[in-house]
Amino acid sequence: MTSLEGFINQIEKEISSFSLPEEPKNLYDPLRYFFHLGGKRLRPVLTLMTGANFGAKGTNALHGALAIELFHNFSLIHDDIMDEAPFRRGKETVHTKWNNHIAILSGDVLFVKAYESLAKCEAKYLPDLLNLFNKTAAEVCEGQQMDMDFESRECVSEEEYIEMIRLKTSVLLGCAIQFGGIVSDLDAKMQQALYDFGQYIGIAFQIKDDLLDLYGESAKVGKQIGGDVLSDKKTLLSIKAKELDCDMQTLAKITDKEQRIVTAQEMFEESGAKNMVENAMRTYFNRAISSLELFPADHKKLYNEFAEYLINRSH
Amino acid sequence: MTSLEGFINQIEKEISSFSLPEEPKNLYDPLRYFFHLGGKRLRPVLTLMTGANFGAKGTNALHGALAIELFHNFSLIHDDIMDEAPFRRGKETVHTKWNNHIAILSGDVLFVKAYESLAKCEAKYLPDLLNLFNKTAAEVCEGQQMDMDFESRECVSEEEYIEMIRLKTSVLLGCAIQFGGIVSDLDAKMQQALYDFGQYIGIAFQIKDDLLDLYGESAKVGKQIGGDVLSDKKTLLSIKAKELDCDMQTLAKITDKEQRIVTAQEMFEESGAKNMVENAMRTYFNRAISSLELFPADHKKLYNEFAEYLINRSH
Repeated sequence: MTSLEGFINQIEKEISSFSLPEEPKNLYDPLRYFFHLGGKRLRPVLTLMTGANFGAKGTNALHGALAIELFHNFSLIHDDIMDEAPFRRGKETVHTKWNNHIAILSGDVLFVKAYESLAKCEAKYLPDLLNLFNKTAAEVCEGQQMDMDFESRECVSEEEYIEMIRLKTSVLLGCAIQFGGIVSDLDAKMQQALYDFGQYIGIAFQIKDDLLDLYGESAKVGKQIGGDVLSDKKTLLSIKAKELDCDMQTLAKITDKEQRIVTAQEMFEESGAKNMVENAMRTYFNRAISSLELFPADHKKLYNEFAEYLINRSH
Repeated sequence: MTSLEGFINQIEKEISSFSLPEEPKNLYDPLRYFFHLGGKRLRPVLTLMTGANFGAKGTNALHGALAIELFHNFSLIHDDIMDEAPFRRGKETVHTKWNNHIAILSGDVLFVKAYESLAKCEAKYLPDLLNLFNKTAAEVCEGQQMDMDFESRECVSEEEYIEMIRLKTSVLLGCAIQFGGIVSDLDAKMQQALYDFGQYIGIAFQIKDDLLDLYGESAKVGKQIGGDVLSDKKTLLSIKAKELDCDMQTLAKITDKEQRIVTAQEMFEESGAKNMVENAMRTYFNRAISSLELFPADHKKLYNEFAEYLINRSH
């Protein structure tokens, strides 16, 4: 069994040597640029890890893993347009460096490349892989739409928020890990257990992201801290703070950005909102771990390590 | 064997009863709206016609045809954003009626729906269908990018223009017809002949579109005549006119829109450019017909009818 780093290196090598046509330059250069920005490669690692864990044959896990990572990159390029985000990983987003039209189209072709990678898997796995991938891709779009819809809403419940991040983020982790199970010929029950792990750890992962956005260190996270507070974004932190009667209106009126962020940090901590969010994260972490109960200890080792890393990371 | 109208009705029924989730409304309502705008349904008809012609079993041709039509609709929604087109088929485009972000995302999910439809075909056909579909989808993106790149270029050669419309338009007709061949278990040579027919008739179809844009009747075409001339778009007409030393600069300086269109109509006709473009269209029409030489007459009948319809239509 290889280490987490081993799997990350494997996918990193695959991405950096990924072959794209030279022309049209305005279509493919943005993708070369985006690949170069890097990423945590967490999703494809889940596929590779699972394939290695359960003895997947040939290159099926690798093609599946790459499909997941390419799809993830496609969704980021389009999300960045919709979120009007100027930067990603400290560098200009595709639509900022080129323009919206080019970002739409290079995203589209990247989506096709994801399906191309999937189509390289053995034919006997294709129906299952394709059905799961399609279902997941539609859910990711639904999650992104919910996220956009939340912007113009006064109130969002915890349940709605969790459902949104489940769709927007977690189902892709579920899909990634189940891909590994499919190409390892696991039965439906084991595949479901893996999917559940992926989905629950994905929710914990996103909650951790929300916490890092306010309480992380700027240099480590790779972006300005407090973006969610400054843009008045609904996150589990703000939802919990509201429930605990934090004075969100006064917070929103603080014009000095630095001051608003510090006030939010203190307010959410003192009210107990931060604590509640950390507990929610741990709840999903525990559910993820419990999902794997049916597997023997040696099969669970890497998943536990992966889960610990996700919720303890500082970026 | 059914008539062209029969196949159109079959796909129209499929589209109008196509099931989409209710929520999120901002994701799926634009698709319901777009389906309602209608369309010529030429591409899926090619799949259905070919499946009927060569005895495809079950619902494979229907699922393949639907995948093609859904993909085509996805590409139109995204192209309309990139072309900043306010209207399609006389109604507001999705990005005009909603906004760009919603048009991006509902386009994305429609792309997924195309793959969902494809995944409903029998497993034994999936690898071939998927490989052809992926190749085609990437080419359509490349064609759209070339089209956008042409906007900022001074000169475009006839060869470049034909390659652009081959990618942007024709390969999807080739893919549609070959889908019918794949699910009818035709051999590679027959599939290639069908693809060639689709591709050549697709080029003739696009050239006809360019002609209709300047010489069609507004009421029949469903949009203002002369849009290409007014936006100084490179088409085979303008490329040929330039070759024949038409005074394109003077044309571009005519401020009165009506006057500019009438001048272009006369200039392109008198110089012989219109005639050359009509000849080019007929050349591709003939190539399409020749591609089917290896098939017996009764198999060719509907294709000939289809091809005649495409180049003789008034809208």
